[in-house]
Order: sequence, then C-alpha cells, then structure tokens
Amino acid sequence: MEKSRRKFLQQTALAGTGLALADVSSLLANESDNKNKETKNVTMNNKLIKSKGYAGIDKESPLKSWDFERRAIGDYDILIDIKFSGICHSDIHVIREHWGTQKYPQVPGHEIAGVVAAVGQKVTKFKVGDKAGVGCMVNSCMECTSCKNGEEHHCETTGMVGTYGASDPTSPSGITQGGYSNNIVVTEHFAIKIPQNIDLKYAAPLLCAGITTYSPMMKTGIKKGDKVGVIGIGGLGHLAVKIAVAKGADVYAFTTSSDKVNDIKSFGAKEVIIVNGKQDQLKPLFGKLDYMISTVPYAYEMSNYISCVKPNGFFTQVGQPINGELIINNFNMIFNRVNFNGSLIGGIPETQEVMDYCALNKIYPQIEIIKADEINGAWDKVVNKQARYRYVIDASTF
Amino acid sequence: MEKSRRKFLQQTALAGTGLALADVSSLLANESDNKNKETKNVTMNNKLIKSKGYAGIDKESPLKSWDFERRAIGDYDILIDIKFSGICHSDIHVIREHWGTQKYPQVPGHEIAGVVAAVGQKVTKFKVGDKAGVGCMVNSCMECTSCKNGEEHHCETTGMVGTYGASDPTSPSGITQGGYSNNIVVTEHFAIKIPQNIDLKYAAPLLCAGITTYSPMMKTGIKKGDKVGVIGIGGLGHLAVKIAVAKGADVYAFTTSSDKVNDIKSFGAKEVIIVNGKQDQLKPLFGKLDYMISTVPYAYEMSNYISCVKPNGFFTQVGQPINGELIINNFNMIFNRVNFNGSLIGGIPETQEVMDYCALNKIYPQIEIIKADEINGAWDKVVNKQARYRYVIDASTF
Repeated sequence: MEKSRRKFLQQTALAGTGLALADVSSLLANESDNKNKETKNVTMNNKLIKSKGYAGIDKESPLKSWDFERRAIGDYDILIDIKFSGICHSDIHVIREHWGTQKYPQVPGHEIAGVVAAVGQKVTKFKVGDKAGVGCMVNSCMECTSCKNGEEHHCETTGMVGTYGASDPTSPSGITQGGYSNNIVVTEHFAIKIPQNIDLKYAAPLLCAGITTYSPMMKTGIKKGDKVGVIGIGGLGHLAVKIAVAKGADVYAFTTSSDKVNDIKSFGAKEVIIVNGKQDQLKPLFGKLDYMISTVPYAYEMSNYISCVKPNGFFTQVGQPINGELIINNFNMIFNRVNFNGSLIGGIPETQEVMDYCALNKIYPQIEIIKADEINGAWDKVVNKQARYRYVIDASTF
Repeated sequence: MEKSRRKFLQQTALAGTGLALADVSSLLANESDNKNKETKNVTMNNKLIKSKGYAGIDKESPLKSWDFERRAIGDYDILIDIKFSGICHSDIHVIREHWGTQKYPQVPGHEIAGVVAAVGQKVTKFKVGDKAGVGCMVNSCMECTSCKNGEEHHCETTGMVGTYGASDPTSPSGITQGGYSNNIVVTEHFAIKIPQNIDLKYAAPLLCAGITTYSPMMKTGIKKGDKVGVIGIGGLGHLAVKIAVAKGADVYAFTTSSDKVNDIKSFGAKEVIIVNGKQDQLKPLFGKLDYMISTVPYAYEMSNYISCVKPNGFFTQVGQPINGELIINNFNMIFNRVNFNGSLIGGIPETQEVMDYCALNKIYPQIEIIKADEINGAWDKVVNKQARYRYVIDASTF
C-alpha cells in the first residue's frame, strides 16, 4: 500500500516537475522524518535537489547566479517548482547585513509562488500540480502553545525558521535558502495553498507584503468607516491600502513620492498626503485617525505621524529599520496617548486567510515582472523608492 | 448680601492665613473674573500676593531664595498657605532645561499641600481652613471636550497650564510659579480637596507621583492577581508599588539600587529584581507580566523590560527623559507584541480620586522632610538615586 503510494507520488512528481533527474526516486527520502527539522536527508547526497538561483555573496556585492542544492524531499515535504518570487525590502536589509551578520552565499526571497512538483509520502495538504506558496518561514517547533495556536512565527522554543539565512541542518549549505530560485523544498505545513482563481504572479507578494499588513489590521479590528492611515506606499503599503479599502475603511495614505498620488487613489485611498521634510501636512490630522500602520523600512521621525491617531488608538510599525532602532518621543506619547506596537508577519492559518481573502476579493498587488538578471537593478530601485510597487521575478529566468 | 459674604471671606481669610497684610481687602479682587485666565487682577499691583520661595535663576546655578508676587485672588481663586511641597525629578529636568528653554527666576514644585487662607467671592469648592492641594496644572480652557470630560491635562485648545514655568498673563512674573514657596493662588477647579484623615506632608507627593502612576494603572485596569511590573523605585515608583499592591496586584519591582530591597518589600512588592547593566535578570520574566510601568526619568535600554510584558499587554513610560527621546527596538516589538504608551499625569477628577483613595487606604509615600536651604542638596541626591523616596519641603522654612 505504502509502496504503491510512493510509486504514484514518484510518477506524479515526475509529470509535474519535468525535473531532469536520472532517477526520480531520489526525490523521495527513505524512512526519513523531516518534521521538526529531524530529517537525516542532508547526508544522502544522491537525493538532494538541484536548484539554481541568485545569491548574495557578501554584504556589498551584487547578487550572483548560483547553483546549489536543497535537501531531499522528506515524508512531510513538498517540492515547489517556483514560478514567481517577489522582491521585499527585507531581502536587501538581510543580505546587506542591516539587521545582523549573515552567512553567504545566501539566496533571499520569501514571497514564493509556484506549482507542487513532488510530495513526500506522508503529505496530505498538497498533491502534485497544486498551486502553492511559501512566505517568510519554513519551520518552527510545532509543539509550543504559539505553534499549536497557529502563531508559528512566535514559536516559543526554537523560534520560527526564516525562509532564508536561518541555520538549518537539513540544508546542504547549512542555512535556509530562499525564493530567488527555481525550486524549494518545504514542510507542507509551511506551504500555503494558492487558490485557482489568483494568478501566481499576484499571489507571491501576498505571502509577505500581504500578510504583514493584513495581520495587524485584523488584530486591531479595523472596520467599515474607520479612518486608517498607511505610511509608506511601497510593496507593503500599497497592499495595506488595498486591503483596508476592501475592509471598508477610509484610507489616508502618506507618501514622500508625489508621483504616486494617482496610483494610490486608484488603489482606493480616500486621501493621499504627500509629506515633505517638515511634515506640516500632518498637523490637521492630529488625533483624527482610528489606526495607523507604517511600512517605512528605515528610522524616521515618527512623532507627528503617531499623533495622527486618536487617543487610545493603535499605531503599528511593520517596517524594520536598520538594527531595529527607532526613536520614540515620550513628550508626544504622553499627550497623544497612542499605543505603539510592532508586528511581524502572521501565522500560517492567517497567511492562508489573507491569500484566500485576496483571491476571493480580487485584491492584487501592482507588480512589475523582471528577469533574474534584473534583480540587482531592481534592488537599487527599491532603495531609491522607484519600485511601482512590487518587483516580481519570473523564476523561469534563473 | 454679596458684600457681607465678601466681608466674611475677608475675615476668615485673615484668620486662616495669618498673612501680615495691612489691608486684607487687597486679597480679594473687585469684580474680576479669574476664570479662564481672563483675570484683570494682574494690573492691580496693590492686591498682589507676596510670596517667598526658592527659584531657579538659570539652567545651572543652585536654586536661590526669592521674594516674588502672585496675582491677586480672583473670584474663582483660592489662596493656599502652603505647608509642604514635594520635590519631583521633573523639577530638575525643567529648571535644568532638559526639556526645553525656560524663563527665570522660576519657582518649581507641583506637589503642593496646604491650608486654604482665602477664597474668591465665587468660590464654592473650598472654604478658608480647608486642606487643599495643587498638582501639575493650574489652568486649562475648561470648554473643550477633554476639559469637560475631566481630562484638563489634555486640553485641546490652550493646552494645560503647568504649575510652574508656563506662560501666564495673570502672573506678575509672566509665568506660573510653583510650590517651592509659602503660598499659591489658584483657580478653585484646579485645587484638590485633601481629606482630613491624611497628613499634608503625605498628601503632597500624591499630587504628582501618586496621580502619574495611578492614572495609567487604572486606565489599563489592573486587578487583583495581575502581575504588575514597576521599573525605577523612586518617588513615583514606590507609590506605584504601593498603589498596585493596594489594588491586589502581585508587584514585581525593578531597581538598580540593591540597598532598596528591604524597603521595597515593605511596600508590599512580591519580588524585587536588582537590575545590573546586562539586564540578565530580566530574561526569566519575558512574557510573564500583565502590565509594566516605568518611572525611569532618563533614556535607558528598554527592550528587555518591555519584553517582560505578556503579548498584547501594555507598557507605560511615565518617566520623561531628556528631550523626551527614547530608543525603541522594533525587532523586539515585533516579537514581544507589547503595546508601548506614555502617560502624563491625570485630570482633576482622577487626581481627587487618587487623593481620596490613598487617604482612605492609608497609602502614604515614604518621605524625608527637608528645609528650604536643603533643596539643592536634595536635588543632587535625587539625581544620584539617593532619595528615599520623596523629599518634601517644610514650607515654613522658606
């Protein structure tokens, strides 16, 4: 019985992937248990998955094309043939060591959308040919309260294992390798089902930019008629605008880029505030908004923005500045009485939720498809605020 | 009728104050309306109140004895014969220009307790001989929503008028002058009734240290059995401990002063954590406390403290650092999921509430009475964390 199932899986895997492997059985690890990072596949070199992507090689150089290997497919793993991979500002922060030292080569990318090419023998969530995605994490302990509650990103024991750059004994390179590549092996639990009615290229950015803005807005409970401010209208921000609009909020979008106004209005924002250095435009809004979310990925003068929130309201900072450090002015905080918090991504159930919600409501990111050899140029544009609004790599070009 | 009432007030004022004024009628302004800062008394020099106190003369020098004048008593004013005045770290911050430039001479002090010596003809809240106190504010517009809701400290038009150093056209010196002095003239609304069963010397620190810690704890809704952290066990912190204990909380007190342990336990704290530079002691408490309040009046490494609060809990910073600036690390915030907020004092109704609550429950600050000529030495000790726990000036020594 088990043997026939394996055989079926091997065949469907072969049909689905088109991977040019001499022996497709090497895709599937024998008697391994890849759950909870206990896989032993890493030592079975003949079963490793060949992958090709773009990697950071140090903290300064341009990314370069890199051939590498992923672990063999464990019982609970799926192999995803990546079709599209989004570029997130976090990729730059990590590879450039803005957030801490890194190991190289390292393939960034945590907005991954593709098609299931093979499944481990105990996989139940996916079958070959399914559309599947991977976001910002690929493992956690799965046993602690947070993990059991679907908040794997707040795993209390090992912590979540990030999609790239995290120590990973199952990876031939010793660290997890991300989505700027043509395939990925991931535990099924950490893969997201992508509905049929959403294009993979639109699904990819939902896996970080979507969930990162969706989660705190849902936690805060934004509702129809609420005045919601979104600061920084880039990859995350423009999705925050679209999601908040879909939820019925009146969205106030804050940008430093005057040429984004028409775009942002087309996303459904009620008002677009172009903020100059003096932030004078913010004062009329002091105490007026029910909630604000900031996607600005650098330290900035937050005080006047925070003061736009009504007393006892909440302000969420999801953009992560260099070293994480932000200056908060308590003179402002004691008068505006706003609650400041941060928010990481979201758990797997909520990531599935935002995927389903956006597919159902046709909330699509505004993207620009690029080829692999355009990644470095795209990174420069992201840093220079020239992205409109998410670069998505066509993985067939790796 | 009105004339006889005025005469009565004049007599009782005389009896109550013992002020050596040739003509007590000069205490009371004719046909003036001191409400909302519209008094015209300031131009009536013969009716000004002579006062004696200690003033900052510039941002560096020791405070010096200073004879000055307060406005005449308007219809809605009371004159308080100050008996005790607490020393708050804010006094030092203000006079030393840590929070912005100042006008001098300036008499600090906003923990003022005394006896009503005279009342304006329209005063109804007090009579001569009553115990009365003044905290951190002496006026506001009284017309905006916040003022009408008893949140005068969040006055939306003029802003609250601080007890010292605030621009004040009714004051002969042009600014409000605080409590390091032997009397004060204040609009009755901004004076607090001090119950008979609490000694004035204990009542004084409740008017800033008490309300500043009471207000955010009540707003957060701390309750019996909650684990409440208090950071910085000085003037504010030790009262926060006592109030939280009285409310039934299990209090975790964080101090850098190892010699305070026995005191803090005597205040009712369940646990005292002596924090060294590395903050190692904090890690076992990560995510364990329901709420934390920090009274630390300087910028400090907050991350590990904030992380002691449970996810979705609140952390309130009431201590005000130099220029108000604190560094918040968003890497911590996205993982600990704590809400950071600031809190100013409290409104007049809530200040009355904490006064009544502490009097009823015998919650007294631990104080050390000093004379006027000991103020400068006491300031040094406050800065050097040597206060145990509130210096209170005997106003008879001015």
